[in-house]
Amino acid sequence: MSFDKIMDLQTVRYEDGELIILDTTKLPTHLDYVKMETVEDCYDAIKTLKVRGAPAIGVAAAYSLVLAARAARKSSFEDFYADFKKAKDYLAASRPTAVNLFWALDRVDNKILANKEKPVTELEGIILKEADLIKQEDIAMCRQIGEHGLSLLKDGMTILTHCNTGVLAASRYGTAIAPVYLALEQGMHIKVYADETRPLLQGARLTAYELFYAGADVTLICDNMAAAVMKDKGVDAIFIGCDRIAANGDFANKIGTYSLAVLAKHHGIPFYSVGPTSTIDMDIADGSCIPI
Amino acid sequence: MSFDKIMDLQTVRYEDGELIILDTTKLPTHLDYVKMETVEDCYDAIKTLKVRGAPAIGVAAAYSLVLAARAARKSSFEDFYADFKKAKDYLAASRPTAVNLFWALDRVDNKILANKEKPVTELEGIILKEADLIKQEDIAMCRQIGEHGLSLLKDGMTILTHCNTGVLAASRYGTAIAPVYLALEQGMHIKVYADETRPLLQGARLTAYELFYAGADVTLICDNMAAAVMKDKGVDAIFIGCDRIAANGDFANKIGTYSLAVLAKHHGIPFYSVGPTSTIDMDIADGSCIPI
Repeated sequence: MSFDKIMDLQTVRYEDGELIILDTTKLPTHLDYVKMETVEDCYDAIKTLKVRGAPAIGVAAAYSLVLAARAARKSSFEDFYADFKKAKDYLAASRPTAVNLFWALDRVDNKILANKEKPVTELEGIILKEADLIKQEDIAMCRQIGEHGLSLLKDGMTILTHCNTGVLAASRYGTAIAPVYLALEQGMHIKVYADETRPLLQGARLTAYELFYAGADVTLICDNMAAAVMKDKGVDAIFIGCDRIAANGDFANKIGTYSLAVLAKHHGIPFYSVGPTSTIDMDIADGSCIPI
Repeated sequence: MSFDKIMDLQTVRYEDGELIILDTTKLPTHLDYVKMETVEDCYDAIKTLKVRGAPAIGVAAAYSLVLAARAARKSSFEDFYADFKKAKDYLAASRPTAVNLFWALDRVDNKILANKEKPVTELEGIILKEADLIKQEDIAMCRQIGEHGLSLLKDGMTILTHCNTGVLAASRYGTAIAPVYLALEQGMHIKVYADETRPLLQGARLTAYELFYAGADVTLICDNMAAAVMKDKGVDAIFIGCDRIAANGDFANKIGTYSLAVLAKHHGIPFYSVGPTSTIDMDIADGSCIPI
């Protein structure tokens, strides 16, 4: 493994007509890429968290619809769309709290409806182009997040993070960890403390894994050590993802985030919640209205 | 299981000439009592955390010396004491940070030296009496801790705790959890949130186990949930043990304790560190001097 290999892990790949997903539940012991044969495989991959992280789920959902289109009847647009819609609704039920899932499914749906006059046989290709676009946009967005976040980092800084918001949660770079990768690209030294993130250990299994192999100086800690690390080791900033941001700036994220925010305040440490603008939900007034 | 059975779990028992230790590493799936055949077995039981918790370690150490006395040469006091001393030093190395271990070993040692004029064959019985006394004192001490702590509790309160400081850490009642058991005895309802306590999960494996079977209303949480529980569920007090207390009142305890203290302060929740007076070390000026 190397920095370049980690950058190119691609949790969701579409190559030579095949949809391949990195089964992150097998990490850190196995780097298993699994071929998705059917829409049912895709449903299972999202439901069982083989693919997780908002950006990666969106990309996986879009490509899943390529498989749906391939399996759909081509007798008429109505037949095709009925089968497509059934697959879309099925996929939407795989993880009812994943906003990016619905967003990607709807985006592809709208693309189909905008192309209903085209020959039915062309629609699979149109979906594939849209899925590719979603993936490219994800990479560009994460890169931009990284650049914005990089402005907050200086060589030699120590940050603390929670859960996984890196390469394994997106198509490249990640979200809250993207600034660290851009810093590494520039030859900066950033020390990262990664919370193991109970109960599913995404920090231990994923964040520590990807940062370690990317050549970062990463130390895995129990969640309950974060306060002692802030007090004794010197943490310059906390970088953390966000599942949803309310109109007033409140945000929801993995359990343990609120704890870190209180501890950061006590220790006078800047606390940055990092995410794409698509995470802002202006329909939600404040954090108390975000469904968990 | 029932309240009475939990109260009588006795992590360290001496019955019919046999030393028996509850292997707490097998909990919560197996309630295994293991017979200690040799001093080596005792060393192993302490080193591998089969027996843990300061009071329980002290009691186990004292009874271990009964086995040491049994195996020692009886040809003369000097021979006996040489063998005894060797066993004592060996046991002292089993867990170099356990203050109660040294305390119990030294107490028995002094008892032997005070009885060096007695027939060598009587010394095993003298050690056994001292070990029984240490155990009875432990029970009385934990009962008193419980009574002091009970004055801080009211019917219907919710407390949060970390690690294991109950029956499985002592001969009866425990330390920081003793007030909860006395409250249960009186028919009070106390709700307990138990941190799972990474990395060794003493809260999940031991505290949740003993409180559940004692009939308490206990909810197991990930350590990183404590802040959210304080904010959303209403916690009236935090009860926690202590490994060592410095002269200025600073104390050291399981990793995660400092985090809870900061979170308790932020939420205005009383935070009680509970332990016997023997935990106070007046030779240590403040917390920074406590070896971890």
